[in-house]
Amino acid sequence: MSSNESFAGGGGGMRASVLLAPGVIEMQDRDVPTVGPGDVLVKVEAIGVCGSDTHFYQNGRIGDLVVEGPVVLGHETAGTIVQVGELVDPSRVGERVSIEPQRPCRRCVHCRMGTYNQCETIEFFGAYPTDGSFSDFVAVPADFAYELPSNLSMAEGALIEPLAVAVYAGRTARLEAGDTVFIAGAGPIGLLIAQVAWAAGATTVTISDPSEERRDIASRLTNAEVVAPEQVAQTSSKSVFFDASGAPSAIRAGIAALAVRGRAVLVGMGMDEVSIPLSVVQHRELSLTGVFRYSNAWPLALELARSEQINLRSLITHEFDLEHVEDALLAASRSASAVKSVVLLP
Amino acid sequence: MSSNESFAGGGGGMRASVLLAPGVIEMQDRDVPTVGPGDVLVKVEAIGVCGSDTHFYQNGRIGDLVVEGPVVLGHETAGTIVQVGELVDPSRVGERVSIEPQRPCRRCVHCRMGTYNQCETIEFFGAYPTDGSFSDFVAVPADFAYELPSNLSMAEGALIEPLAVAVYAGRTARLEAGDTVFIAGAGPIGLLIAQVAWAAGATTVTISDPSEERRDIASRLTNAEVVAPEQVAQTSSKSVFFDASGAPSAIRAGIAALAVRGRAVLVGMGMDEVSIPLSVVQHRELSLTGVFRYSNAWPLALELARSEQINLRSLITHEFDLEHVEDALLAASRSASAVKSVVLLP
Amino acid sequence: MSSNESFAGGGGGMRASVLLAPGVIEMQDRDVPTVGPGDVLVKVEAIGVCGSDTHFYQNGRIGDLVVEGPVVLGHETAGTIVQVGELVDPSRVGERVSIEPQRPCRRCVHCRMGTYNQCETIEFFGAYPTDGSFSDFVAVPADFAYELPSNLSMAEGALIEPLAVAVYAGRTARLEAGDTVFIAGAGPIGLLIAQVAWAAGATTVTISDPSEERRDIASRLTNAEVVAPEQVAQTSSKSVFFDASGAPSAIRAGIAALAVRGRAVLVGMGMDEVSIPLSVVQHRELSLTGVFRYSNAWPLALELARSEQINLRSLITHEFDLEHVEDALLAASRSASAVKSVVLLP
Amino acid sequence: MSSNESFAGGGGGMRASVLLAPGVIEMQDRDVPTVGPGDVLVKVEAIGVCGSDTHFYQNGRIGDLVVEGPVVLGHETAGTIVQVGELVDPSRVGERVSIEPQRPCRRCVHCRMGTYNQCETIEFFGAYPTDGSFSDFVAVPADFAYELPSNLSMAEGALIEPLAVAVYAGRTARLEAGDTVFIAGAGPIGLLIAQVAWAAGATTVTISDPSEERRDIASRLTNAEVVAPEQVAQTSSKSVFFDASGAPSAIRAGIAALAVRGRAVLVGMGMDEVSIPLSVVQHRELSLTGVFRYSNAWPLALELARSEQINLRSLITHEFDLEHVEDALLAASRSASAVKSVVLLP
Repeated sequence: MSSNESFAGGGGGMRASVLLAPGVIEMQDRDVPTVGPGDVLVKVEAIGVCGSDTHFYQNGRIGDLVVEGPVVLGHETAGTIVQVGELVDPSRVGERVSIEPQRPCRRCVHCRMGTYNQCETIEFFGAYPTDGSFSDFVAVPADFAYELPSNLSMAEGALIEPLAVAVYAGRTARLEAGDTVFIAGAGPIGLLIAQVAWAAGATTVTISDPSEERRDIASRLTNAEVVAPEQVAQTSSKSVFFDASGAPSAIRAGIAALAVRGRAVLVGMGMDEVSIPLSVVQHRELSLTGVFRYSNAWPLALELARSEQINLRSLITHEFDLEHVEDALLAASRSASAVKSVVLLP
Repeated sequence: MSSNESFAGGGGGMRASVLLAPGVIEMQDRDVPTVGPGDVLVKVEAIGVCGSDTHFYQNGRIGDLVVEGPVVLGHETAGTIVQVGELVDPSRVGERVSIEPQRPCRRCVHCRMGTYNQCETIEFFGAYPTDGSFSDFVAVPADFAYELPSNLSMAEGALIEPLAVAVYAGRTARLEAGDTVFIAGAGPIGLLIAQVAWAAGATTVTISDPSEERRDIASRLTNAEVVAPEQVAQTSSKSVFFDASGAPSAIRAGIAALAVRGRAVLVGMGMDEVSIPLSVVQHRELSLTGVFRYSNAWPLALELARSEQINLRSLITHEFDLEHVEDALLAASRSASAVKSVVLLP
Repeated sequence: MSSNESFAGGGGGMRASVLLAPGVIEMQDRDVPTVGPGDVLVKVEAIGVCGSDTHFYQNGRIGDLVVEGPVVLGHETAGTIVQVGELVDPSRVGERVSIEPQRPCRRCVHCRMGTYNQCETIEFFGAYPTDGSFSDFVAVPADFAYELPSNLSMAEGALIEPLAVAVYAGRTARLEAGDTVFIAGAGPIGLLIAQVAWAAGATTVTISDPSEERRDIASRLTNAEVVAPEQVAQTSSKSVFFDASGAPSAIRAGIAALAVRGRAVLVGMGMDEVSIPLSVVQHRELSLTGVFRYSNAWPLALELARSEQINLRSLITHEFDLEHVEDALLAASRSASAVKSVVLLP
Repeated sequence: MSSNESFAGGGGGMRASVLLAPGVIEMQDRDVPTVGPGDVLVKVEAIGVCGSDTHFYQNGRIGDLVVEGPVVLGHETAGTIVQVGELVDPSRVGERVSIEPQRPCRRCVHCRMGTYNQCETIEFFGAYPTDGSFSDFVAVPADFAYELPSNLSMAEGALIEPLAVAVYAGRTARLEAGDTVFIAGAGPIGLLIAQVAWAAGATTVTISDPSEERRDIASRLTNAEVVAPEQVAQTSSKSVFFDASGAPSAIRAGIAALAVRGRAVLVGMGMDEVSIPLSVVQHRELSLTGVFRYSNAWPLALELARSEQINLRSLITHEFDLEHVEDALLAASRSASAVKSVVLLP
C-alpha cells in the first residue's frame, strides 16, 4: 500500500476518544491520519494512562499548557505498523513498535544538538493541539516508532514511555554503581526510577510517600526501603535524590537528605515556585537539575525492559478497552491500589 | 633555625589584632605561633579584607558560624616564609607566598577524594576558634603556602584568596569558550568572576548590581555589560549565571535569564531559604550548584594572575596598616567607592 | 522567487571546477543545483583550500575515501543566499552566510543524539560523489547556512570551517582556563587550535613543526612558544596535547609531553596505525580521543570570530579566482610561506 | 597498649616471607613494624596472590620496578587491628579490616586533588623497597584500613584489592546502565570487571581469552558471553572495552569492537608500546584511557561486595598457609584451573 492511499481503503475512518472540555470525553469517528513521507501509520494496541492525562481530563490545563479545543489524550503507546511513508523501509509493515510521542523539527539548534525535547516547535502527543493516541491509529515519524522486543507485550510497550522518563532522569543524575538513592513519590514514575536506580548499581534505594497504600505497593513492587515522609532520615547520607512528587515539602526533605556533592533531579511537576534550603545547597555543594520529558531515552528503556532489569508488567493494575477511556482516566483516583491503567485495543 | 626554636628568639612575641566582641577589636601581644613539623611560619605582609570579616566584626556571627570568644580575623594573606618545620625543605625560608587559609585533616573521606573543603574537622582562618592573619606571623601547612610569582605584589598575593573563590566557582560552572555569562553582584567576588569568565573565553559577560556606585566601578574595572537589576533581560539567553549577591530576587532573576541547559552557581551567601522558579528549572533543564569556599584553586588562581589574564591590582582601593584594622574593616561601609581594602605590614 | 523556478531564470547554468582524475581539473558548465524544500541556494563568494582538497587533487584518494568519478572539491564556503526552499523563511534571501558543508540524514540514532557527524549516510561537500563548492552556486540545508556576522568578510566566512575543526577539537579536549597546551603541526589547523586554546584560557601554548618556515609563520601569527620537534621538552608538563600533524613521531612526542591525567586529541589524519607508549598512558592515566570532522561547532566558531578572540584574516596568504583553482590547490606545495589560499568569486 | 610499646610485648618478633632474589623466598624472623601516630597495626589473616607478585617472584622486576634487595611481597590483605597509633580511635582495636596497600604523602598536588595514586613519593606494598603483607603483621595508615562488613570473610577482605582495580577501571570508563561491555582477558581482574559491569547495569558483557580453561572458568563464574579471541565480532557494537590482558592483539581487537564514541580503558600491563588503529579511533571518535592502580576505590568495592552485587568467594580456588607462599605464588602457573590463591594465617 502506498502512502497516498488511505489505510482504511477508500474513506474508512477510525475511532478516537476526544476530550471536548474538562470532564467531557466523546468517542468520535475520524479520518485515519495521513502518513507523511518519513512516517509510519501504527494500529494502536495499548495506551497507558499518565497522571497528566487525568489532570488534563479533570482540569483542562497543566500550568501553561491549556486545552483550548478538542484533543485526543494519550501518549504512552504501542502498536503495529500497518503502513509506511515513501521514504520508509516497506519491510517495517507488521513490526510491533513502542512510540516516542513527539515530533521535533529536526532543524533548530536544540534538535541539531540532540536535545530535541527542547525544540520550540515540537509537537507532543495529547498536548493540545496535537492529538494523542486514544484512537485506532496514529501516524508518527518512522524513527520514533521503535521495534518492540519480542519478549515484551503491547501493554509493556506502552509503558516504555514512563520508563523513558525514569531512564532520562537517571541519566541526568549520572547514576553510577554505589549510589545511595532517595526518591520522593511512589507513583509509577517513582517506582520506575527505583528500578532504574537498582539497574544502575545503586546499593540502597529509599522511597517516601505520604499514602500508606502507595507505600504498601512500593514495598511489594520494589526492593526499596519505603518510608513515610516524616521518617525521612536527616542523615545527609544520600548521593542522589529524585523528586517524583512535585511536593515542595518533599523536595526540601530530599535536598536535606543529600550528602556532600549530592545530586537532585526534579522530575515531579506541579509548583511554579519552591523554596529550597540555599545554605544547605551551598555548604554541601549540592546540584539540582530539572528535567523536561526526555530525549534519546527509548533505546536504553527498551533494552532495560528486554533484558528484564526492569519489570513493567508488575505496574499494570487495571485494563480497559477504548470505550472506557474515562474509567481508565479515573481509575487512579477511584482506587488507592491502582498503579497503572492500560487501555487495550486488541 | 630549627622548628623547635621560637622565631622571635627566646620568648619574643608578635602583634595580633583580636576581635573580642562585636565591634570591639584590640591589638594584643601574643606568642609567635608554634611551627609544626609540616608547617611554615610566615611573616605576614598583606591581608585583604573580606566582607565576611566585616560581618563577623559587626555582628559576631554568620549563620551557624558564631564568634564565641576572642579571635583574629583575616584570611586573605601573603607574606614571606621565615621558618620551616622539620619535614619542610629549608630552602623555602625567604620564599614569598600566598596562603590558602585552611588546614584540612587530610585523612577523612573528603580529604582523600580531593574535596578537602568539605573536611568536617577543617580549620579555617578567622573562623572561631581558629585565628586568622591580622597579626605579624601565621603558621600554615607548607603545601598551603604557595610561591608567589615574582611579578605579583604582596597585596596581590593576598587577593589570590578571593580570586580562588572566583576560580572555584568558574570550575564548578564548567566555564568554556563561548559561554554567555550573567553575574549578580558587583562586589569583589562578582568582579573577579567576571575576569575569570573572560579568561575562560566567555563571549559576553553581564553584571547587575542595585548600587549605581558599584555599577560605575564594574564598568571601569571590567569589560562587562553592566546593568541595574530591573534591566536584567528576560531573554533566557545566558549559558551561565553566577550569584555573587546572596539576594533572593537576584537569584531568581539570574535563573530566569538562563537559556536551556543553563548552569547557575550560587556563590553569594546570606539566606537560609530562597524561593526558586521550579517550573523554569524543569522546562529549561537548568542546573543549580552551590559552592563552599574552594579546594585545589590556588595553582590556577596564581597562574591566571601571573599571566595577567586577571588584574588584581585594580581592585585595591584602600590601604591600611595593622594599627588600623577596624578602619579597614569599615572602609567598604564608609565609602561607596571602596572595592577592596588591604592591610599592609611592611 | 519561488523554489520551483530556476535561479538562473530559464535554463541558465553555472561554472563548476570539476576534478576529473588525479591532477586533472576542468571548468564545466553545469545546472544550478535544485533547491529542496528545506534548503537554500547560495551564491558562492569565497572558498578556502584545505589540505584534503589538495590531497584529493594530487592522489585521488584519502584512505578509504576514493574519488571514483568527477567531483567538485571545496568545503570551506561562504556566500549569499539567493533563493530559499518552500519551508524556509523567504526573508533570508540576501543573507550573508558561512556554510557547514554536510547534509546529515537527521533520523538515524547519531543524528537524534546530536552527533550527526557520525551519521552513516551523511553527505559531505567534496567527498565523492557529493560535490563541493568550487562553483558559482551550492544548495545546502537552510540550518547549515549560518548568518555571517557583519564584521567578518566572505573569506573569513569560508575559514569558519577550519575554525570549526579547531573548536570541535578544543571542545573534545574539554579545554579550560589554566590548561597548558602542546600542539604538533603548524599548519592552518594547528594555528587555529592555538588561537582556540588561548581563547579558552590556556596559560601556555606550545607548537612544534619540523619546517622552519612554518615555525616562523607560527611565531608571527600566534603568541605561542614555537619549537622544533627535537626540542619538545620531556617535562611531562602539558595538560592537553593536540596532534594536528598526523605524524606518528609527533603523536608519540606529544603523548610523552603530557602530565598526569593529560588529554590528547588526535586531529591530524594520515596513518592507519600508530604505535603509542602504552606504559606512559597507563602510569600517567592519560586519555586519547579521536575526532572526526565536527558537529554543532559553527555557532561557537562564528561567535569567537565575531568577538575577535580569533583572527582568521591573518591566515590568508594567497587569493585566487575560480579560473585558477589548480593554482590555489598547489599554492601550499609551491610556497613554504603559504598558509591559507582562498578562491574568491566577487 | 600505647603506640610506643611493641605489640609482641618486649622484643618479640614475627614471621615474614621474604623474596631475596628471583625464585628465592625465605621465611625470616623480623621485628613487628613500628606503629606511627596515625597508623594501625594489623594482624594479617588473609593475603591474596596477584599476578604481579608471581611476576616479581619469577623475574625480579616488572618494567621499571626492580627488586633491588630483600622485600616482602603481597598487597591484597585483610586482618584485624591489634594496636593503634596515638592519633587513632582506640576503639578500633579488634576491628576486622581490608587494607588499601599504599601510603601517599598527602601533601603533594596529586594528594590534595584526590588522585593520590599519582603521588610521586607514594609507598606501595610489596614494591621494593616497601614491604608487603606476607607476614604476621603490617602497619598501615588508619584511614587505609577499612572496616570489613561482617558478612565478608577475611579471604574476601583480601580480594577487595583486585575488586578495587576493577571498580576504579569501571569508574574511569564512566560505566552506566545500558553499556555493552567487552573485556579482553579472563584472569581475576577481567572476571571482576565483568561483575562490576553487570552491577553498573551493562546489558551485555563479553569476555575473550585465548585459554580454553580460562574461558570455561569465565563461563562458570560470570553471566558473560565468553569467546575466543578469533571470535571477537567486528561488529563495532560495544560501548566500552576493558583490556585486562596486556596483549597488543587483544587491545587492537577490543578497539575495533567499539562503536562510535566507545571508551577503552587499558588495565592490563605488559607492553611499553602498542600499535593502535588510529584511523578507527578518529572515525569513530573513540577514547582510550590508562589507569594506574586506584584511588578512592575501597568504599565502593566494599559496598558492592557487602551488598552481594559482587561475589568474591567464587574466585578463590586455592588456599595456602604462610609456610607455603611459594606454592601460592606458583599455583596459577601450575594449574590452568587456578583463578585466585589466598594465603591464610588463622
